[in-house]
Amino acid sequence: MAETRFHVLGIGNAIVDVVAYADDEFLVKHGLDKGRMTLIDADRTKALYGAMAPAGESSGGSAANTVASLASLGLACAFVGKVHDDQWGAVFRHDIRTLGVAFDTLLSRGGAPTARCLIFVTPDAQRTMQTFLGACVELGPGDVHENEIAAAEITYLEGYLWDPPGAKQAFVKAAGLAHAAGRRVALSLSDPLCVARHREDFLDLVNDHVDILFANEAEITTLYRVDEFDTALQSVRGHCAIAALTRSEQGSVVVSGDQVHVVDAHVPARLVDTTGAGDAYAAGFLFGVVQGRDLHDCAHLGGVAAAEVIGHFGARPEIPLKQVIAEKDR
Amino acid sequence: MAETRFHVLGIGNAIVDVVAYADDEFLVKHGLDKGRMTLIDADRTKALYGAMAPAGESSGGSAANTVASLASLGLACAFVGKVHDDQWGAVFRHDIRTLGVAFDTLLSRGGAPTARCLIFVTPDAQRTMQTFLGACVELGPGDVHENEIAAAEITYLEGYLWDPPGAKQAFVKAAGLAHAAGRRVALSLSDPLCVARHREDFLDLVNDHVDILFANEAEITTLYRVDEFDTALQSVRGHCAIAALTRSEQGSVVVSGDQVHVVDAHVPARLVDTTGAGDAYAAGFLFGVVQGRDLHDCAHLGGVAAAEVIGHFGARPEIPLKQVIAEKDR
Repeated sequence: MAETRFHVLGIGNAIVDVVAYADDEFLVKHGLDKGRMTLIDADRTKALYGAMAPAGESSGGSAANTVASLASLGLACAFVGKVHDDQWGAVFRHDIRTLGVAFDTLLSRGGAPTARCLIFVTPDAQRTMQTFLGACVELGPGDVHENEIAAAEITYLEGYLWDPPGAKQAFVKAAGLAHAAGRRVALSLSDPLCVARHREDFLDLVNDHVDILFANEAEITTLYRVDEFDTALQSVRGHCAIAALTRSEQGSVVVSGDQVHVVDAHVPARLVDTTGAGDAYAAGFLFGVVQGRDLHDCAHLGGVAAAEVIGHFGARPEIPLKQVIAEKDR
Repeated sequence: MAETRFHVLGIGNAIVDVVAYADDEFLVKHGLDKGRMTLIDADRTKALYGAMAPAGESSGGSAANTVASLASLGLACAFVGKVHDDQWGAVFRHDIRTLGVAFDTLLSRGGAPTARCLIFVTPDAQRTMQTFLGACVELGPGDVHENEIAAAEITYLEGYLWDPPGAKQAFVKAAGLAHAAGRRVALSLSDPLCVARHREDFLDLVNDHVDILFANEAEITTLYRVDEFDTALQSVRGHCAIAALTRSEQGSVVVSGDQVHVVDAHVPARLVDTTGAGDAYAAGFLFGVVQGRDLHDCAHLGGVAAAEVIGHFGARPEIPLKQVIAEKDR
């Protein structure tokens, strides 16, 4: 096996989040699908941003959030994703590199600007996301390098990558390289609408290529086209080594072979903005996996990480997660 | 008198804030003057940003923050300030215009990018600011228009404008136009180091041109070169119609002719980041002034607005201040 340089390498859409409060009336008026991620074009982005309340900007992107949290926990990480050579791209690069993450994907210099996700946070702390993929559509298999993938214990992929066509090829290439190097592949299903768009592909992936699967209740039931969470849980069992299924305030259920662990949620001090909760959960969980902790502990660590992120605006931890986990990891 | 179109017109540096946590060790290591605003050049900005933790970006600038809060309170406002035609400039424009603020200063197209302020928030919620003025240095008297100034009940100026040379001329022109139109001029002293840099000018201003003065304890004692707050308070009395002097958790003292009002601070639910506390106080206070409230009420409203802003990262209210005031204004 190649020398291990990274605990986790993430591949995902490199996005700057634009976050503001909105009420439910705003969502209805603008036809936004509450709680979901919708892809929008440049014109729609301009119109929606024009209507949006004053916002805060911060680095986002699902896999990138997970990698940032893992680095914040002290793990060695790498990230592959495409930003433009613009001010938002500089913000994205700064925020991930300053955590010590290796991020060397070539900048896009022509074409669309760095991707942005307009996030509308309602008073119930739910987030509704409208994503302009921008430079992310230029990510392709040429951005995935064998030596990097082979050097990572786990290659972590987000389901959202299935949307831009070149990224999907990058995804498949990365999974192949990881397994050829005797490494593990983790996947987050990202969003129920995204699962619905690419259901057959995701079923093949889960059956044949994924060792560790992350999904929430809506995503896993959409994948198996079932109504009941328990039915979906039985369907996924045996198809990948570990499936970590999150259920918001009901905590998470981890399935691995004959084992099923039901783990309580960690109650946050405040519930402000659920953006990034799933990404942080995956980070806490993988932190446990890398350390060889048992699956119950992994799920507990996932819950602690998620609780930090939902206590404030923005998808990434505000204070080093290492500090948070040290206080809460019993 | 000209038709009144604006309750308040603000003139200030148009800045995007870049906010991250830092510990005191970081401040010492990088030679940062805790709690103060320091001007830095492009090279120093690059070096400090490179060392800074992952950050969140949001619109800032002292007078701009005050205007944003006033608009969030439902007042009709205008703002004059210079941003570059870049992504940060677009963020600044969006955030202030979406509140209904008239902001029509011509964009800078050559020269430096939109100004940024690197803000390091320590665990004690204190903020240390490092400002790269960027496009702000291009603001000049040509950006101040008589019809706008004459249409505003109050022209509000930040002391920081004394740093870029052209802005200072814009400031003097605006104050002259406001008084010629029978309007009032308000000034915030901004920062003790800024007061020290321009002390003689500020004394002349306060004596001859300012109707409503905002200053904190460090700023007013620096202005009069005295050790005691009470001595400074006696010095300012009679030099401008109203002086509102803030003392952090000790609340504020308002001096106007023979009247002295000592008003308690409003205790925030949480103390996270004091950035923008003074700007929000000025907004709450001016909101009261415009409504013809008594000075004690004005100071109380200032305290309520400040309490909202220090409860989270970032210098501007996260939820509409109108809502906050409606709940707290007894």
